[in-house]
Amino acid sequence: MDYVYGPGRNHLFVPGPVNIPEQVIRAMNRNNEDYRSPAVPAMTRTLLEDVKKIFKTTTGVPFLIPTTGTGAWESALTNTLSPGDRTVSFLIGQFSLLWIDQQQRLNFNVDVIESEWGQGANLEILASKLAADTAHTIKAICIVHNETATGVTNNLATVRKILDDYQHPALFLVDGVSSICALDFRMDEWGIDVALTGSQKALSMPTGMGIVCASPKALEASKTAKSVRVFFDWKDYLKFYNLGTFWPYTPSIQLLYGLRAALDLLFEEGLDNVIARHSRLGKATRLAVEAWGLKNCTQKEEWYSDTVTAVLVPPYIDSAEIVKRGWRRYNLSLGLGLNKVAGKVFRIGHLGNLNELQLLGCLAGVEMILKDVGYPIKLGSGVAAACAFLQNTTPLIASRI
Amino acid sequence: MDYVYGPGRNHLFVPGPVNIPEQVIRAMNRNNEDYRSPAVPAMTRTLLEDVKKIFKTTTGVPFLIPTTGTGAWESALTNTLSPGDRTVSFLIGQFSLLWIDQQQRLNFNVDVIESEWGQGANLEILASKLAADTAHTIKAICIVHNETATGVTNNLATVRKILDDYQHPALFLVDGVSSICALDFRMDEWGIDVALTGSQKALSMPTGMGIVCASPKALEASKTAKSVRVFFDWKDYLKFYNLGTFWPYTPSIQLLYGLRAALDLLFEEGLDNVIARHSRLGKATRLAVEAWGLKNCTQKEEWYSDTVTAVLVPPYIDSAEIVKRGWRRYNLSLGLGLNKVAGKVFRIGHLGNLNELQLLGCLAGVEMILKDVGYPIKLGSGVAAACAFLQNTTPLIASRI
Amino acid sequence: MDYVYGPGRNHLFVPGPVNIPEQVIRAMNRNNEDYRSPAVPAMTRTLLEDVKKIFKTTTGVPFLIPTTGTGAWESALTNTLSPGDRTVSFLIGQFSLLWIDQQQRLNFNVDVIESEWGQGANLEILASKLAADTAHTIKAICIVHNETATGVTNNLATVRKILDDYQHPALFLVDGVSSICALDFRMDEWGIDVALTGSQKALSMPTGMGIVCASPKALEASKTAKSVRVFFDWKDYLKFYNLGTFWPYTPSIQLLYGLRAALDLLFEEGLDNVIARHSRLGKATRLAVEAWGLKNCTQKEEWYSDTVTAVLVPPYIDSAEIVKRGWRRYNLSLGLGLNKVAGKVFRIGHLGNLNELQLLGCLAGVEMILKDVGYPIKLGSGVAAACAFLQNTTPLIASRI
Amino acid sequence: MDYVYGPGRNHLFVPGPVNIPEQVIRAMNRNNEDYRSPAVPAMTRTLLEDVKKIFKTTTGVPFLIPTTGTGAWESALTNTLSPGDRTVSFLIGQFSLLWIDQQQRLNFNVDVIESEWGQGANLEILASKLAADTAHTIKAICIVHNETATGVTNNLATVRKILDDYQHPALFLVDGVSSICALDFRMDEWGIDVALTGSQKALSMPTGMGIVCASPKALEASKTAKSVRVFFDWKDYLKFYNLGTFWPYTPSIQLLYGLRAALDLLFEEGLDNVIARHSRLGKATRLAVEAWGLKNCTQKEEWYSDTVTAVLVPPYIDSAEIVKRGWRRYNLSLGLGLNKVAGKVFRIGHLGNLNELQLLGCLAGVEMILKDVGYPIKLGSGVAAACAFLQNTTPLIASRI
Repeated sequence: MDYVYGPGRNHLFVPGPVNIPEQVIRAMNRNNEDYRSPAVPAMTRTLLEDVKKIFKTTTGVPFLIPTTGTGAWESALTNTLSPGDRTVSFLIGQFSLLWIDQQQRLNFNVDVIESEWGQGANLEILASKLAADTAHTIKAICIVHNETATGVTNNLATVRKILDDYQHPALFLVDGVSSICALDFRMDEWGIDVALTGSQKALSMPTGMGIVCASPKALEASKTAKSVRVFFDWKDYLKFYNLGTFWPYTPSIQLLYGLRAALDLLFEEGLDNVIARHSRLGKATRLAVEAWGLKNCTQKEEWYSDTVTAVLVPPYIDSAEIVKRGWRRYNLSLGLGLNKVAGKVFRIGHLGNLNELQLLGCLAGVEMILKDVGYPIKLGSGVAAACAFLQNTTPLIASRI
Repeated sequence: MDYVYGPGRNHLFVPGPVNIPEQVIRAMNRNNEDYRSPAVPAMTRTLLEDVKKIFKTTTGVPFLIPTTGTGAWESALTNTLSPGDRTVSFLIGQFSLLWIDQQQRLNFNVDVIESEWGQGANLEILASKLAADTAHTIKAICIVHNETATGVTNNLATVRKILDDYQHPALFLVDGVSSICALDFRMDEWGIDVALTGSQKALSMPTGMGIVCASPKALEASKTAKSVRVFFDWKDYLKFYNLGTFWPYTPSIQLLYGLRAALDLLFEEGLDNVIARHSRLGKATRLAVEAWGLKNCTQKEEWYSDTVTAVLVPPYIDSAEIVKRGWRRYNLSLGLGLNKVAGKVFRIGHLGNLNELQLLGCLAGVEMILKDVGYPIKLGSGVAAACAFLQNTTPLIASRI
Repeated sequence: MDYVYGPGRNHLFVPGPVNIPEQVIRAMNRNNEDYRSPAVPAMTRTLLEDVKKIFKTTTGVPFLIPTTGTGAWESALTNTLSPGDRTVSFLIGQFSLLWIDQQQRLNFNVDVIESEWGQGANLEILASKLAADTAHTIKAICIVHNETATGVTNNLATVRKILDDYQHPALFLVDGVSSICALDFRMDEWGIDVALTGSQKALSMPTGMGIVCASPKALEASKTAKSVRVFFDWKDYLKFYNLGTFWPYTPSIQLLYGLRAALDLLFEEGLDNVIARHSRLGKATRLAVEAWGLKNCTQKEEWYSDTVTAVLVPPYIDSAEIVKRGWRRYNLSLGLGLNKVAGKVFRIGHLGNLNELQLLGCLAGVEMILKDVGYPIKLGSGVAAACAFLQNTTPLIASRI
Repeated sequence: MDYVYGPGRNHLFVPGPVNIPEQVIRAMNRNNEDYRSPAVPAMTRTLLEDVKKIFKTTTGVPFLIPTTGTGAWESALTNTLSPGDRTVSFLIGQFSLLWIDQQQRLNFNVDVIESEWGQGANLEILASKLAADTAHTIKAICIVHNETATGVTNNLATVRKILDDYQHPALFLVDGVSSICALDFRMDEWGIDVALTGSQKALSMPTGMGIVCASPKALEASKTAKSVRVFFDWKDYLKFYNLGTFWPYTPSIQLLYGLRAALDLLFEEGLDNVIARHSRLGKATRLAVEAWGLKNCTQKEEWYSDTVTAVLVPPYIDSAEIVKRGWRRYNLSLGLGLNKVAGKVFRIGHLGNLNELQLLGCLAGVEMILKDVGYPIKLGSGVAAACAFLQNTTPLIASRI
């Protein structure tokens, strides 16, 4: 199936699935195992303990579900809510839209707060809704931490503050798919009730593991939530946690070992250093975009995303053409514009196990493509801007000092 | 995480997850890819076409869902049935029990036909229920083709015949988790409406892909089925099939390449040869059990399973001890007895990518363990019986003639 | 290149190359690295230190040469001897013959002590030669510890004793290709001057690393040895050892990591336990051969090899046919009879990373093949004999107690 | 052994060992096999046939030797020459120096033609020596096609022309270690008698296979060459070629499969396209060096190497510091200056399985390092120059059009 073979490495800059480090690929390069032997539960125990660290929680309970982000969403919702429950949800891009669609199809009463694509969640409207909701009809606030379609990061601390200001008991459900392990994320401090991510994002693993973490309050809610669920039911997991065998159905042995390796790498680098690296690469990307004279789809600095940058192209260019040329000519994989921004933006994913020179190679590629499609770019300008910043800020690799 | 290291290969004889051939491990040993590039849809197209062959269907539509067998069950049920619908389901062991539990939790009205564990589905009662159901209140027959807990294979052709005899329109839903790619399975000929399996069974891949195949009648039913579903909704798949991009959410790139390799191996050996090999290994196992003077949990020959053999131990032996010793002393992984037969049976899985000498090594190991736990076995007896049969029946390897 | 595909695992029982454990395969599954970065020397340092343990030496200096056993031979000889030097060498099988051939082509004056194939080195003749050699014209005794062609293990302690008895200063050069890491081997205690092995034997790695260990006396000899050498010259290695960069030319990065993993596994099991395991598997094999009514090519118990058993077949059977059938029908790889014993013996290699059930599967396969070619075997007899022994002697796996 | 872990990919730009494509890593990710089964000879036959294509020879005979480039040198020399034979050899850098050292240690009478490092072989002196050698005392011309230490490519066609001009019968031995599969190489057309390379160079495999190709004239010479040799003796290979079993001693199964994959990739891209890609990347690198205001160690354009560029740094900078910083800060592996040019040059290897964006990432990294060490570089300047060239010349990837 290598009929699309091109020489050299594929430069994978879609915002997921992202590059898998060799250490993780190696860890997964193995035969199956009996998941009922003593070995798998023993390893699972360490995974469940360690995975809490990426959520920055000590009181949460994590679930490693054989599914994708979409399934993780469903797990978060169906375990905590009942049909007809009112949720407040923010529509700011394709992924928040899909989550809202799921909420509607799961028969929740979704109160949508819409913003222009490129803007963050409108938290003023949230505040007014909470202020008005003295009867506490709002059961959950559902928010995508980082909207992957537009490169917008929402401020979760502010959401919590608003909830607290109004002493509102709504559950706080967060899609951290393109943020956890890359952006600052503090489940306990921000009082998040369910947080979730997928293995193929900043964890830098293959797709296939939805990681959901529930606060004690969310677990309590799950006892009375009436949404129909079986595969995604936390209860089955909790039953097997208590038995010490951990798995209600067969896990992927390979993904367990992969997660072990991925966590080991994150901890070796240091989670704070990982976040700082994403901040550095995000900033470098934005500096390049600015140097090219192009606009970031994200409208204000407060929403800038350190995991994905959506770049607006001039009206006379079809951004899909940029993506297509990257793949056909430079073995470069960029993200398409989706839905409302289709044709208008292309996206550079800069999350996961990635470093400065990889990003700079990508930026150089984008420059050549832009020139190719007729944009009057000064070749090297974006790379120069990014280098000027990175040369000043990139630390020595800790293990090599 | 190799603190349970033992020298030599692990002898994996649980009935799933099973041994992965090197070719599949190799095919999966790769970085992520952009699943929206032209490469992944092109490969997906071949997979969807080829995977139909393992179901023996030309009219069915397959779905490759990032989930396990439990999720595949849920996909089969929620896409075809509505809450309150009457299903007929057979309780003959732990996995049929779990499926029934799921049906009940999904709010179907489950009409359970129970048999003693070790017996097959009671099709006479099915016939009488269908005969009585002139109002066609029964919406679906749900049957586990091969009950992995007891090593019992049900006769699907007979189920179809009964449905036809009564001209009953109920959907025919089949769990083929431990049968498809190992036992004779004919979706079209037997008029099966939904068939499903999991990647970690006879396909000999890692866990993580639930493969569900729907007949035109099932697809038609899905248009009106009212069960709530999002992640498992076929509609989202069909939408992307029509778009030619195939994936409503991120697939595991590695499992796609793994499936490609797994199918290639199956077709290279020839599906009929694969089934014949399972038949040979199943018979050899049963001959060994007989030579040991032990009983098969399966009560009649008509139900003998060619993918798993549950062996009854004498009352003075705890079968869990056998499994434990296998693992601790011989690097042998056997299946535990589950639920009603816990402590009473141990299970030998002989499905997937496996050959004669692997099985004989396992049988020799079981003999030593049996002696170890005080069973008066004649060492070599089971191996001798199996060899006598295999020496007469094992064909030359086609590619080496 | 899988046109010889057969289902299930290949049962690899040639006496080399042997099965590679998954841990080693995984460790080698990686890109190249700059071998001049600080990382590779740092790892090399640990390898050179740890590899001495498999020779049981503290004073020896090891060389990890990118070559095979044949190259390791050449390294041992050319670094310590000068053209015209008299060596005493034992011809007892194909590999000792090949080493002698090499010695002759390297222009040494080889004094060959020949034995019938199936017998060990005739140490009485050695004694008489040493007794007669008061002028110390003999510069080296060259002996193959374990003759892989016939399954004969020579007694190195006795060789040392004879040398000591006559206070003879000859160098003691040992081919440990099919013994080191499998049989008791004591470089320092037995006063061995050069010992060598290859990575694809009991170390259970791919082919490609010749491991040569030199005593201080051998290193001293290398300063004056006049054999022409460059690639195999220890001097170049020693120069880079002193520089701390270790490599006179590019090593295989993959084999370095593979060696690291292989040593880790050996040490985790415990070298003495590894040797005991080989002893157990060797004995089990011989018990099976005896039960089959066949003769061991090795004529006396004192020479029995715990790494390879050469089985004599009756005159009416061509042993090559046995090997051929194993491969074509049971995916079993056995060793051919070589040279003088071609057609007369087939060989079962039982060295490296291997366990009881793997061996028993092989023995069952051999039984079926023997029946196939018309030998009046009682199926199961050899397995029964082996099981009776193994069931009594196999310890629990240390990590699983 | 990941104590030198850094996030993201290592950027491997030493001129060997080079990046291994995933396809080759995958192909090598396997257990050992019996190399005497029918499978390995069958594959070897295709390898020997296909490997001739990378030498552009139809009459040559290739040898796949388990060794490195140093061993391949030794094989070339000892099989064709006798002690005392006069060779003409060019000293233009570290690798030609090492080959000359080997020739001297192998007791040839080496007539060294020395040039300043950074210059190519002085072919005028060669001409004069040949002109004077009417007695044909010169037995071989030994030349390194591409001197990896200085980035100098010699003109082999001219060497042949000079030999022809003087109708001189000397053997023409060529080190193609850093040229074959990357630079234009025509064994038959240029009348080369022995050409050789190593697997870890432009073939993009792990180290461990020395590939030597002998012309009919070289094979004829090998019949009378008196250099002592065993491991490297072609005769043993030829004997097993005739037997159809191909291997005089155990090959690395993994490297055979790796070579198969590597050749398949080269042929899929097209050897001419591979060479054109190297030409493009070499030129882009030189344009960047020029833009930086630095000098190429290679003194004239006619000698520019498309596989490695040695960059001269100003006297106030230690080039070793550049290499060190690359590794410690940017996960970038550059080549050190060796011997005479130690501290004065750093080297960028741009050979093997590599593409434009990988190179551009490297160039950006070098810019930041240069700034770091105090060189007054304009960041982005080299990348801009390289991009301007590459944007005009990079073709679409053939398989993606």
